Amino acid sequence: VACAVHRAPAYHCREVGEFELIARLAGALGETGPGVLLGIGDDAAVLPPDLVVSTDLVVEDVHFRRATTGLADLGWKALAVAVSDLAAMGAAPLGAVVGLALGSGWSADEAVAIYEGVGECARECGCPVVGGDVSRAAVLMLAVTVFGRTAAPATRGGAQVGDVLAVTGSLGGSEAGRLLLEAGAADSAAAAALAHRHLRPVPRVADGRILAPHVHAMLDVSDGVASDARRLADASGVCVEVDLDALPVQPGVEEVAAARGVEPGAFAATGGEDYELLVALPEAALATSGVPLTRIGRILAGTGVRFTGAGADEALAGFDHLQS
Amino acid sequence: VACAVHRAPAYHCREVGEFELIARLAGALGETGPGVLLGIGDDAAVLPPDLVVSTDLVVEDVHFRRATTGLADLGWKALAVAVSDLAAMGAAPLGAVVGLALGSGWSADEAVAIYEGVGECARECGCPVVGGDVSRAAVLMLAVTVFGRTAAPATRGGAQVGDVLAVTGSLGGSEAGRLLLEAGAADSAAAAALAHRHLRPVPRVADGRILAPHVHAMLDVSDGVASDARRLADASGVCVEVDLDALPVQPGVEEVAAARGVEPGAFAATGGEDYELLVALPEAALATSGVPLTRIGRILAGTGVRFTGAGADEALAGFDHLQS
Repeated sequence: VACAVHRAPAYHCREVGEFELIARLAGALGETGPGVLLGIGDDAAVLPPDLVVSTDLVVEDVHFRRATTGLADLGWKALAVAVSDLAAMGAAPLGAVVGLALGSGWSADEAVAIYEGVGECARECGCPVVGGDVSRAAVLMLAVTVFGRTAAPATRGGAQVGDVLAVTGSLGGSEAGRLLLEAGAADSAAAAALAHRHLRPVPRVADGRILAPHVHAMLDVSDGVASDARRLADASGVCVEVDLDALPVQPGVEEVAAARGVEPGAFAATGGEDYELLVALPEAALATSGVPLTRIGRILAGTGVRFTGAGADEALAGFDHLQS
Repeated sequence: VACAVHRAPAYHCREVGEFELIARLAGALGETGPGVLLGIGDDAAVLPPDLVVSTDLVVEDVHFRRATTGLADLGWKALAVAVSDLAAMGAAPLGAVVGLALGSGWSADEAVAIYEGVGECARECGCPVVGGDVSRAAVLMLAVTVFGRTAAPATRGGAQVGDVLAVTGSLGGSEAGRLLLEAGAADSAAAAALAHRHLRPVPRVADGRILAPHVHAMLDVSDGVASDARRLADASGVCVEVDLDALPVQPGVEEVAAARGVEPGAFAATGGEDYELLVALPEAALATSGVPLTRIGRILAGTGVRFTGAGADEALAGFDHLQS
């Protein structure tokens, strides 16, 4: 059964949103002391001399529903999403540890099926699972921590006025695949390709390592270019201009967007979960970085994000998956 | 409110026990490929050249109950238990990442209180929290991953016939403290010390680093010497003899044990959660390792664990916190 792994708010409660909660939690931890090169707030943390670490939770009934989830796909994606954070730092994966809280009603066979997907992704990404922990729990939760190495991590914070904004690969495919899966309409070859993009994202590990020395700023596209460009703008203290007409829309996405009355560029900018790399780099590096990139905008003086092209709307910049 | 953080089965379901489940999950992951020095099965994994990693889950209604849990204590202990695995490898902590699945009904204020305890422990252990993730969930879960460095990790597998079995510090205090807390009898100064031992364990980080070059095998005492000695015996392919009369029983424990009709040595050997270091080392190293150690037994040819002294019973070796 081909099933969607559902995109979902990472955290939301009545009192505070995700970012306020993280800020409060970071404050509660107090001073970290010396020895941390880059802490909470980027794709991953960096510790001297060259260790990069990131962690992600996948929670039943938040990030996926049991009834509609392919178990191996779930395992694959849990690891892939974490490894994508390493890719976005330009790091080479060293390994991963996986905590499994096995929800009541889940069988050992189902847990094994999830781990088979984790193992497949581990081999694909060169990120072996070296340890873990198991517990029972009311619901199934996976906690995946990945670590890697890079001598020169690429952060979100270095974009410079005059830089080009560019992206690897293509956009919109994951969200289109998710919609097709939910509609039970992923039977054609074209639809199956989009569904596969949603279920089995492949982190851009090699591209991230090649790009890191050439870029001023880099992050992975997890929530859509519209949101992630804003993160880059905020971290770098610049304005990011995105040309929606320039986005590399994955084949087949246009039809899915059109059926919903959305411009393909706007759809691709807000879809999320493509796990491409979004970079700001000098014009001269665009052709020489060694990685195929599509120019999708530019870095300007100012703050925030602005859009040009069909479907441009300031509200795209306000897209927040916590509120949707 | 002083409250117990409850000791609980890490995992148990009708079908399979914890160790069988871990073995099946490890099998499902497939080949890890080259580049892993020590994978699943010791206190922590080791990756070249010198990275040590371990992960632990703390789950509501499994490892603790909300109604009886001190929030800062919970945070402290979640990190301390993970750091103890680094100590048991002889590693210096580099940092930690914390995944928080905030259960329904938990407030941001409560999460902050938990993290304050995490931060206190992080400063005590020199293990800064450098990142994390947050999600909502049906129940609260903390997933703590720690990483450290050592050029010469101490494993469980190197004990040699003729070695001395020894332990740092004292035993039995955590379990005595837990019992006093559950009975609401932790008011006296002596009882409060035991309760503190249970609620705020301090990993033997410095001792572990000093001991590592001197020992043949080392692990931390998480489930009680009786169980952990068996792990050492199994990993090393030796028989471990434990003299219950020689165990360094923490002051105040004898009274708690006596009230339950248990010999103090048997109580201290099975109590668990002391987070001392259990080592096998050459006789000559016992006095010269630089760490105060108590001799509690010896390494013999054979398999399994045997006990001498008051309360000795082969069933102690069969103690399994999954079945209790």
